[in-house]
Amino acid sequence: MTVHDAISGVKGFSVAGVCAGLKGTAALDFALMVSDRPCAAAGVFTTNLAKAAPVLLDRETLADHAGAIRAVAINTKCANACTGEAGLANARVMAKLTADALKVAPEAVLVMSTGVIGTHLPMEKIARGVELASGALGQDWAAAARAIMTTDTRPKSASVTAQAAGGTFTIAGIAKGAGMIAPNMATMLSTVVTDAALPPEALDAALRAAVGTTFNRVVVDGDMSTNDTVLLLANGASGFEPDVTAFTNALREVCDSLARQIARDGEGATKFVQVEIIGAPNDNAAHQIAHTIATSPLVKTALYGGDANWGRIIAAAGRAGVPVDPSRMTLWVHGPDSTAPLCLFSAGLPADYSEEEATAIMKGAEIAIALDCAAGSGGATIYTCDLSHDYVSINGHYRS
Amino acid sequence: MTVHDAISGVKGFSVAGVCAGLKGTAALDFALMVSDRPCAAAGVFTTNLAKAAPVLLDRETLADHAGAIRAVAINTKCANACTGEAGLANARVMAKLTADALKVAPEAVLVMSTGVIGTHLPMEKIARGVELASGALGQDWAAAARAIMTTDTRPKSASVTAQAAGGTFTIAGIAKGAGMIAPNMATMLSTVVTDAALPPEALDAALRAAVGTTFNRVVVDGDMSTNDTVLLLANGASGFEPDVTAFTNALREVCDSLARQIARDGEGATKFVQVEIIGAPNDNAAHQIAHTIATSPLVKTALYGGDANWGRIIAAAGRAGVPVDPSRMTLWVHGPDSTAPLCLFSAGLPADYSEEEATAIMKGAEIAIALDCAAGSGGATIYTCDLSHDYVSINGHYRS
Repeated sequence: MTVHDAISGVKGFSVAGVCAGLKGTAALDFALMVSDRPCAAAGVFTTNLAKAAPVLLDRETLADHAGAIRAVAINTKCANACTGEAGLANARVMAKLTADALKVAPEAVLVMSTGVIGTHLPMEKIARGVELASGALGQDWAAAARAIMTTDTRPKSASVTAQAAGGTFTIAGIAKGAGMIAPNMATMLSTVVTDAALPPEALDAALRAAVGTTFNRVVVDGDMSTNDTVLLLANGASGFEPDVTAFTNALREVCDSLARQIARDGEGATKFVQVEIIGAPNDNAAHQIAHTIATSPLVKTALYGGDANWGRIIAAAGRAGVPVDPSRMTLWVHGPDSTAPLCLFSAGLPADYSEEEATAIMKGAEIAIALDCAAGSGGATIYTCDLSHDYVSINGHYRS
Repeated sequence: MTVHDAISGVKGFSVAGVCAGLKGTAALDFALMVSDRPCAAAGVFTTNLAKAAPVLLDRETLADHAGAIRAVAINTKCANACTGEAGLANARVMAKLTADALKVAPEAVLVMSTGVIGTHLPMEKIARGVELASGALGQDWAAAARAIMTTDTRPKSASVTAQAAGGTFTIAGIAKGAGMIAPNMATMLSTVVTDAALPPEALDAALRAAVGTTFNRVVVDGDMSTNDTVLLLANGASGFEPDVTAFTNALREVCDSLARQIARDGEGATKFVQVEIIGAPNDNAAHQIAHTIATSPLVKTALYGGDANWGRIIAAAGRAGVPVDPSRMTLWVHGPDSTAPLCLFSAGLPADYSEEEATAIMKGAEIAIALDCAAGSGGATIYTCDLSHDYVSINGHYRS
């Protein structure tokens, strides 16, 4: 099973990415993904209490119509969050416009929005996006992936064609991420589609399992969006109903690829960083420690500076709110070659390592941090990135 | 009761700030504070599980000798944290060297260290610092305050002379902060001394009360140090034992001034920001919301950019882990003039405000954010700063 970044197609699905003028430039800013037949669908949404209107609407739609979804419409530039009843009404209009253009029921359309919080959807531009995209449906998946970008510097997509006992199916997904990326929640927008035939309940279970160890393991800045959503649509066009475990494994591969792409393209990121905790009291504790390290501004700036300042990692672990004893911890770092880890801190004491070797690893574009807490068998891995000058530039001036 | 930044003196105390060569420059880097008679003492220490050696030693000393403290010795450049038994032995030697120079018992000396984690104290330079400082004791409080700076750009000190029924007493303190600043703990190093006469138990209660609403309300980056310590020494040289409430109030004023100075001088800070939460379910919930807003990289970069991007504030409140309803929230901002707040978000909807007016406030050097959750009577205030390019520069290259 090989995951490809490029998507060549998924049976029965067509997509489009167009310029609706939302960004005020010639950039693509509106995407549409459509199935030629009803899909089973599942969604995982932000746990932020400030839920955007499209999140509220999609949850409502999936509650009653998870077996008959036909399309997903996605706009950028405006998150339609903190917009009250008017925002919810606008989300409904966006679904209705899409439904009318596709000649399907409004309840068959899911919507996603990303961008600035607290402004209303510019409905004329949304209508223009629907009109253009519904007239441009085809197999340009790269355009669809590009059309959902905000501060992303590159489009994110992944696909896999898997063989299971009795048949073959394809899963493909696009995602946008970059900033406001934190577990626990899907941490961004992503739509994943498949031609496998699975009922909504099985899809839902598979999606939750896959998201738990992929999208929910990415952290860029610790901020959690009001709009985070992962949708999964299965139209059954392959005529094949795979074993749920086989399907979940393939889905996890696609989500994992998208999650890594999001971390790699974190706002201002110059490095991809994997934080792996082992020996924690339990998996939740391991995750909490990994998250504290991955969101520590001091750790992230040291990573940016290529500085093997491991004391900041131990200090972050020590304040994670988990009962672990730093004087028993052992810490390694390594680059892309995981067979050559360098021990920096051993059972509570500075290790005898070469500063040049440590710096060589920390200056690399791909860094893995492995921390053994010597306190149990819990483990967790998080994908993250460094904190750079560009993160500050991007977010100090994002609206303007 | 007026708090002054400058310290003119506290009866019975002498201090010194010297250059021991710890920083490898001509900068002051070692401080000593001495009382001419035994002091009652109290301390509040980091809750980080990775506690530095001086924290472990001071806790031990205060447990048995809180009624007979004579001096505090403070070094910069090396935190003596994550250094195991050897580190603890070095901290003891630092106390012993100081005790010998002052001709007092080793148990009468408290020690503090700040700087890089994971390196051992350079004991020759520490000995040199003790020798120079013990020979330079006097009333140069500015030098002492300057000698404990690390990435601080300016020294921090505060003093108050208070009148209470039956007498007068003075409280004065110095502090260092800048980075790795977060509740819950004292968030930095500070030593506060007074000529009031109070027993250790009363001092301890007063210190905990004062720290709770001052030092523990400052957050720069959310990282909590391994070394955070606030010490309070009372030598009774005024001959006056004030009412504990009067003393606590005066102490809080000194701590509040130092806490504000720390937030103002946060690493790379260009703005002083006060985050005030009202209407939360309870005070703890209010604090959690305030802390989440104050540590949000997206909020902090928007503050740096002078952008009234209030959606990020609401989104941070929504992920604070507290059961509040963003659709009932109201948000204001104002500058130094608290009588002219500008409402940005009202009962869950964007308010009708002038973007120019909002930007004018956000571009200022002093910003207050006030959020009413409309969910109870809990409240909390946190002092913080923005997240700038300079924070990244300072911490990307701090060790080098």
